[in-house]
Amino acid sequence: MRQSELFTKTQKAFPKDEVSANARLLIRAGYIEKLMAGVFSMLPLGFRVRENIMRIIREEMNATGACEIIMPALHPKSVWETTGRWDEMKSVMYQFGEGERAYGLGPTHEEVIAPIVQKHVNSYLDLPIALYQIQVKFRNEERPKSGLLRGREFTMKDLYSFHTNEESLNVFYDRVKEAYRGIFKRVGLGDTTYLTLASGGSFSQYSHEFQTVSDVGEDTIYLCKACSVAVNHEIITEQKVCPECNSNDLVKKNAIEVGNIFKLGTRFSEPVGLMYRDTDGTQKPVIMASYGIGVERLMGAIVETYHDDAGLIWPQAVAPFIAHLLIIGEQTGTLKKFADTAYQSMIDADIEVLYDDRTDVSAGEKFADADLLGLPWRLVVSNSTLAEDKIEVKKRTEKEKKLIALKELPKYITK
Amino acid sequence: MRQSELFTKTQKAFPKDEVSANARLLIRAGYIEKLMAGVFSMLPLGFRVRENIMRIIREEMNATGACEIIMPALHPKSVWETTGRWDEMKSVMYQFGEGERAYGLGPTHEEVIAPIVQKHVNSYLDLPIALYQIQVKFRNEERPKSGLLRGREFTMKDLYSFHTNEESLNVFYDRVKEAYRGIFKRVGLGDTTYLTLASGGSFSQYSHEFQTVSDVGEDTIYLCKACSVAVNHEIITEQKVCPECNSNDLVKKNAIEVGNIFKLGTRFSEPVGLMYRDTDGTQKPVIMASYGIGVERLMGAIVETYHDDAGLIWPQAVAPFIAHLLIIGEQTGTLKKFADTAYQSMIDADIEVLYDDRTDVSAGEKFADADLLGLPWRLVVSNSTLAEDKIEVKKRTEKEKKLIALKELPKYITK
Repeated sequence: MRQSELFTKTQKAFPKDEVSANARLLIRAGYIEKLMAGVFSMLPLGFRVRENIMRIIREEMNATGACEIIMPALHPKSVWETTGRWDEMKSVMYQFGEGERAYGLGPTHEEVIAPIVQKHVNSYLDLPIALYQIQVKFRNEERPKSGLLRGREFTMKDLYSFHTNEESLNVFYDRVKEAYRGIFKRVGLGDTTYLTLASGGSFSQYSHEFQTVSDVGEDTIYLCKACSVAVNHEIITEQKVCPECNSNDLVKKNAIEVGNIFKLGTRFSEPVGLMYRDTDGTQKPVIMASYGIGVERLMGAIVETYHDDAGLIWPQAVAPFIAHLLIIGEQTGTLKKFADTAYQSMIDADIEVLYDDRTDVSAGEKFADADLLGLPWRLVVSNSTLAEDKIEVKKRTEKEKKLIALKELPKYITK
Repeated sequence: MRQSELFTKTQKAFPKDEVSANARLLIRAGYIEKLMAGVFSMLPLGFRVRENIMRIIREEMNATGACEIIMPALHPKSVWETTGRWDEMKSVMYQFGEGERAYGLGPTHEEVIAPIVQKHVNSYLDLPIALYQIQVKFRNEERPKSGLLRGREFTMKDLYSFHTNEESLNVFYDRVKEAYRGIFKRVGLGDTTYLTLASGGSFSQYSHEFQTVSDVGEDTIYLCKACSVAVNHEIITEQKVCPECNSNDLVKKNAIEVGNIFKLGTRFSEPVGLMYRDTDGTQKPVIMASYGIGVERLMGAIVETYHDDAGLIWPQAVAPFIAHLLIIGEQTGTLKKFADTAYQSMIDADIEVLYDDRTDVSAGEKFADADLLGLPWRLVVSNSTLAEDKIEVKKRTEKEKKLIALKELPKYITK
């Protein structure tokens, strides 16, 4: 894409009403815009990052055998009364209207999906089933001030699985655990994200969270140096020992909860009447689990993990463009032709490239914007690189620059 | 996909609480599920149709040069007060909360997008701009009973364009008009969808709707036999003449509004303060237009247009799968091998195929379900087709069956 055709502009200053690094950087760089606290628009660059994250999540979810659907956000009060959660969720669910017209905006979808599955499941032969959606969620957060990390409106991948017995559930649960590891690794958070034991509810001793270590994280975890599992502070004992390996070599860290997986047992299937006919002909409640990842929160966690004073630093898998091509100098004659050729050959090589062809900004501004936008590769074409018939290549994460011939460029960047 | 792995089942009977053909058929066939009046979930088959429609819309939008973003559904009351529409929209907008916490669920996004553009536009050099989203919308419909044609929650493609003058607006407006024609043609509604003159507001004499002729349509249009333009009954004169060509050869029809395009002028840019610096240095309000297509409504219009007593009939471009492969007879030995080979060779040829490999349903049920699900091509493998080393091929829209060799099948289907 030509940057002259990108409608967003970077801002010289950080927004004054934001404290979180992710919101400050993303707004200043024109990736997102705030409508109100906890509610953001995704502008073209932010939209592309979000799409990349959703594509990775979708690929890993499909690989588990789960099937994609989409459910509504507007729920009648009645479905939430079935499980007793209308009152329980009052503090986080937007609820409005009266009588037949009383609605809630869904912060989660157990109450909606269980009756759908109930309609299509008769016998043990119909199970297991795994269904997911990537869909808008709402949560009435008191004072959201962490940018994308805590939204009143956000996109969530929520997966639900349905089983006849615990063994079947455990098999799929472990498969999703691995899929989640795959997702966090692919988006660049593999090294800082820990499987974390958290409180489990009545059906199992623990639930599992995926926590990304970060100074700005609102959660506190204890990282076990012996077995690399983490423990949410909510369930840590006074003795501060790891429940997995009994080591007491634990380190206290702030962390961002980027995913959670939860065995629900029959908590929702029983009140909803989600039953199946077992091998012996008896009716039994279906065993459920749920698995969540917040898309924008994950995007925020990536930004918190990867940035510096100059701006954003995108991991290649989620970057809105792989390369940022800058033409420095007057855009005429051979120089322009050389830069245009470079742009076209990147497109021909299927490399997503943002071409800074703006004529009304200085070289200094182009370099500063390249750092701020944070694309993985900066490619500079100027009269001095032209003299050598090469392009100056620099990684956003490194200081070193290299001169590379155009012919070798695509291979060099995607290697 | 193997049908044995599809969790949805077809229902023997139509749902009792639905009157519209689209909801009755889609629910019975397991494409969608109703949560409450006007609010539906998209199950795997419905999800795939919706994805196909959105992909077509996206391709045609991108071809106009418009850029995709996504804006929130949860809006603060304050932005709607700026334009005076908080009260104006009271009857269709879900509004709740009080004071600083008063929100509306957006039925449209002029109030949200104008300030975003305002932040990034300074001068005439920054214009024109065209931005679109495919995003969830909410409308407080009194008594929705038309299935997907009128939803309380639905997905909408809304495009907004921003210009310095009417000439620029007209150029883009006409480009979108053609893109819309392209969309309706590709989804199979080209022959029954008419550009329709409707009331225009203060900035232009007419707005334009795209109306698909259908007995169940809630709109009434007058179709001009002379020039093929239609006129919404709202603006037809007592003399009943075509405003385009003055012909009085008009036919009254029911129709479904599947799209609309609207010149907004400065109706929203002025109150929001969306100004640009013109060539002469003066500040002028930006000229806007908006362009909408309801995704699920379009899906509903396709169903209303294409179905018969036996079930759905999907146009190839939006069908959840292109082909429905049925194995008839005991699934063992050579027959099973032959069917499995046929399934695999369709996959290898990149043809999306649903393989009815269910063992617990009769041949009659498989044929009935094939008609109900309505995929474009039915492929039958049985002992009698096996004897000839061929597959029986039938179009959903035709009675004629043909025996085709497996080798020739992919070409035959996609020709």
